[in-house]
Order: sequence, then C-alpha cells, then structure tokens
Amino acid sequence: MTTPDDAQSPNAATRAKAALKRDPWDLPDVSGLVVGVLGGTGDQGRGLAYRFAKAGQKVIIGSRAAERAQAAAADPQLSSLGVEGADNAECARRSDVVIVAVPWDGHAKTLEALREELTGKLVVDCVNPLGFDRKGAFAIKPEEGSAAEQAAALLPESRVTAAFHHLSAVLLQDPEIAEIDTDVMVLGEARADTDLVQALAARIPGMRGVFAGRLRNAHQVESLVANLISVNRRYKAHAGLRVTDV
Amino acid sequence: MTTPDDAQSPNAATRAKAALKRDPWDLPDVSGLVVGVLGGTGDQGRGLAYRFAKAGQKVIIGSRAAERAQAAAADPQLSSLGVEGADNAECARRSDVVIVAVPWDGHAKTLEALREELTGKLVVDCVNPLGFDRKGAFAIKPEEGSAAEQAAALLPESRVTAAFHHLSAVLLQDPEIAEIDTDVMVLGEARADTDLVQALAARIPGMRGVFAGRLRNAHQVESLVANLISVNRRYKAHAGLRVTDV
Repeated sequence: MTTPDDAQSPNAATRAKAALKRDPWDLPDVSGLVVGVLGGTGDQGRGLAYRFAKAGQKVIIGSRAAERAQAAAADPQLSSLGVEGADNAECARRSDVVIVAVPWDGHAKTLEALREELTGKLVVDCVNPLGFDRKGAFAIKPEEGSAAEQAAALLPESRVTAAFHHLSAVLLQDPEIAEIDTDVMVLGEARADTDLVQALAARIPGMRGVFAGRLRNAHQVESLVANLISVNRRYKAHAGLRVTDV
Repeated sequence: MTTPDDAQSPNAATRAKAALKRDPWDLPDVSGLVVGVLGGTGDQGRGLAYRFAKAGQKVIIGSRAAERAQAAAADPQLSSLGVEGADNAECARRSDVVIVAVPWDGHAKTLEALREELTGKLVVDCVNPLGFDRKGAFAIKPEEGSAAEQAAALLPESRVTAAFHHLSAVLLQDPEIAEIDTDVMVLGEARADTDLVQALAARIPGMRGVFAGRLRNAHQVESLVANLISVNRRYKAHAGLRVTDV
C-alpha cells in the first residue's frame, strides 16, 4: 500500500533537486505586515487576533457591521495591543494578509462581496466545513473540493492559501497560556505565499508553520477538525498536532 | 467558524458524562494476540510485522500466494522474531487481529474473498486511497466514503477499525531506529475494538494509539498521507504526527 515515503510522481526527482537549493526554514520577515481577520468577532478570529497582536503584528478585526468589529476590538485584551475593528471591506483593504475565519455558512457570500478589496492580497483560509448530528462532527465536502479551493475559485486575483485549521480557540484566547503547543499546516500553490504564512504562524510562541501541500489537498486538513473534536471529547483536551521529524 | 473545541452535538453532555467514568488510557493487555498482516510482503506490511514481532507479538504475514509470504517471512530480520508467512486465508484464520495493508487497487477484492475467514475478527484497515500525477499525490474518495468504510461494508461480520495510516515504512523497517516518534490515530465504532487497537499501537516503542473518531471520519485521516508526502518532500523527512495535549 501507499506510504508517506512514496515518491511516485514522475518528476519527483527533479523537484527534489530544486528543493535542495532552499532551506525550508529560511522564511521571510513578516513583522511589518498588517493582519486582517475576517470573522474576527468569532472565537477563532478573536483568538488569532489576540495572538498576532501580542506577537507585535498590527491587527484589524473585520465584521459585516463596523460597530460589531469595533466592539470586539474594544475588549481590553485586544485594545491594549492596538487591535482595531472595521467592516470587512475596510479590514481587507487595509491589511496585507487577510485571514478568513468566518462560519462556513457565510464563506462564499463574504468572499464574493470582497473580491475587489482582496485583489492582490494574501488570503489565508482557515475555515472548516463541518456538520454535526447526534454522533458528533462530520466532514462536509464543498463542491470546489474544500473551503480553500472555494476561496481560490471566488478570488482569482488573490493569493489564496490555507492554514490555522486545527487551533483551539480556548487556548488561543487564554492569556495564561504563553505557548501554543502545535504546528500549523500551511497549504498553497506559490512558495512565496506559503513561506509568508509559515513565517506568520511562527510569530506565535510554540507554533511552527509547516508546508503541507497544495490546495487540492486542503479538504482533508480542514475536515480533520472532526477527528480533533473526537479526540478532545475522549481525552478532555485541547488537542493540537505536531509534525515529527521536521 | 468551527473550532475543535466545539461540542454542538445535542447529546454531547451526556456522552461527556459517560466518558468521565473511564480513563481513556486504561487499555487492555494485547500481548497474547496473534497479529496477521494482509499485504505483509509490501513495505508497510513488512515494517509493521517487524515492529509487532519485535514487541513480542506472534505475527503472520499474509499474501495471495503462500510462497511469497513465506519468502518474505524468511528474511532474517523477520524469521529471527518468529514471523511466519501464509496465504491470506490462513493468515486471517489464524490471527486475532488482522491488519489490512494491501494496495488500494486490490483492497475490495482481497477483503471480499476473505469474508468468511474474517468473521468475528478485529480488522485494522490502514490503506490510503491516493492517486499520483505530476503535481504529486492527491486523495481518492471511495464510493463508501473511505477504505475503512469500504472494509466495513464488505465485512459486515467483522469488527472493522482503521489505524496506522501515517507511518513511514522506511522508519518501521530500519533496525537502527529504536523508537517511532509518532502517534497513531485509531478510528472505529466500538470502544472495545478501538481500545484494543490503541493498545496494539502502544506496543511499539515511541507510539501511542489515540482515539480519533468514527469510521465516517476516516477519509480525511487516510488522505492526509497526501499532505505528509508533501511534507516529506519539502523537508526531506519521514514525518509523523503527534497529538498534543493528550
């Protein structure tokens, strides 16, 4: 059967040779970038906003209504770190990197409405399309393959990546937690973009950003959250994932 | 958006209460069980056979042709640990736990032919349905949802679980490697069965078996191997996954 060691792709050798030339941990300085968080009034969005602001990034929380975003940013935990709130359009316009942390239900509609503002921007989709029933969580497969591929289809002029799927919002928001013990799988098509997202993940103490493939392999990363929910229930934990041997 | 902290299932509280009663690390003694490995002549199968035999389990390698299985088991690395070879039917009949490590192409046919021998057995599917093209590996979604669900559909009288998807066959087979630095995600419907597979994973030094949900959430665990292949190429690694906070 197939194991992760396999290299059955015809030009694997060529690519391996090209990769040799670059240290995968040689990542750009992203400290000066403005980070926008669409859906920044939700738990995950606020948690990410808090961690990035704490790490020294300029952060803008976005929401449909500017007042809601401003109210969220007025929380002392965020306002003391200079976090601002704005409507989604202004958040997208003013940010270099735009994290999409909206509910799956509003994903397509939110992004469609921001196509112009997101032109040329680095978009980081962290949405997990899941359903719930009495047996727990299960994966939903978007028509485009994944939330990230839906974003890429809706935003042809943006640089779409996917990351930050597996984070516990509870841990992110807890000021008593100094380090987040997890790696972040980063997916995307262009190395310059995934390198940048990896560098952004590494701004949060304890985290590393690990390149984990192209967007066509985003569905399993998104839906693995269903499994982590099972882990968390069984072990009463806030599970993360560490990639070993890298 | 949805985070792994969520507990939106209506009877999550009831289940959480029931789970309180049992320590998830209180696992059965599996040292006396005979482990069969269908597809045991492949890299993954031989690697698992080696590790389980080294841990003290009685191991039988299965293959379509008994001679091929016997030849694989005659390798000094395996024969010195008492590993035997047999045709798939005999392997299944003589084993308590049967690991399915055949190529995805032969998965359905192999299991269909063994329905009778696998009746009542604990079956552990570790098959990853993947395709490869010039861009690398990608997930294949079986009609039944996953390889594990296909196994469950074909083997209604067996106890089907899924585990051991993410292991590097290179590391498993290397006698210089004393510990395998990874957790094993274990999926299944019956706790008695997943507990047993978790205990089996824990027989290999360095490994833990971590419960990670029902079979309907197996597809993303199987296809995550496509992402690990990307990781391994980028970082020249044999990546594994550690679940943090459990």
